[in-house]
Amino acid sequence: MLTSKIGEALVKAPSFESALNEVLKILYSYWDVRHSFISFFDPESQTLKIVSAFGLTKEQIRRAIFKKGEGMVGKVFKNELPVLLQDLEEKGYLNKLGLKDVVERGTSFLAVPLKTADQVLGVFGVFKKFKEGESKEKALELLQTLGTFISITYLINKKHSQERAFWE
Amino acid sequence: MLTSKIGEALVKAPSFESALNEVLKILYSYWDVRHSFISFFDPESQTLKIVSAFGLTKEQIRRAIFKKGEGMVGKVFKNELPVLLQDLEEKGYLNKLGLKDVVERGTSFLAVPLKTADQVLGVFGVFKKFKEGESKEKALELLQTLGTFISITYLINKKHSQERAFWE
Repeated sequence: MLTSKIGEALVKAPSFESALNEVLKILYSYWDVRHSFISFFDPESQTLKIVSAFGLTKEQIRRAIFKKGEGMVGKVFKNELPVLLQDLEEKGYLNKLGLKDVVERGTSFLAVPLKTADQVLGVFGVFKKFKEGESKEKALELLQTLGTFISITYLINKKHSQERAFWE
Repeated sequence: MLTSKIGEALVKAPSFESALNEVLKILYSYWDVRHSFISFFDPESQTLKIVSAFGLTKEQIRRAIFKKGEGMVGKVFKNELPVLLQDLEEKGYLNKLGLKDVVERGTSFLAVPLKTADQVLGVFGVFKKFKEGESKEKALELLQTLGTFISITYLINKKHSQERAFWE
């Protein structure tokens, strides 16, 4: 089951970043997600930056910096609401990543905010081509669940780091 | 959203046990779950013991000790599969807890293993009366998701405790 594997990766990986890389690899292996990214909000620069990516070039990662409210990613972060865009090639979205030209026909973009009940940390985005009959609503729900796993892991690790720093 | 609130509780609570207590209170407030428990497997006694409970007496908690494979709880742990029992009063299940006599007519029992991809830690059980049209499949899915949150939290906390002990 996808959620079990991802739960396992988040617990076992030696670092948070390697955990995220593993999560995106699992999404590729088990859910056919060929391009994906996890962005966190950097309070210093007040922008969302990619912390882990799969199927993106260094250039695309470098360009994928968004202010709160900027582009689809910035809007997901600002509104704290998920988004699903179908048939990317027909719309003028996602030009900043330059991905519109490299993804397959019929690919959709799904993004969810990484959040707990009172704070939003970043955005989790995937590019997925849905099979016939595959439910888009279930896909968004699954992504939201995985997003909550990631948020919990991040915040618990952060809590422990702060405690350690306090005692050192 | 229930999963956000529970994610928040797992991150913010001062101890793992208080986090679990908070989770069960949230299930009562937001999902009308009047009786629930979270059991972990104790390797020393080789039994499942309740670590957190809501709506159970001290006596019921004390009695709710199960070996692997014993009763519904022990079977969920051994088989690593969820279970849903409808209309408890009509069956001879769950006698050990003595709950059969105190829950409302039409209450169902749902239990999921607490697990990640390669280890099973315990069992998460709730007693719920479903409303008309409320999906039992979705309820089990939700419980499995919450179970994974709990497992992730437990294992990450454990990992940090072990690292701290190593350096002290």
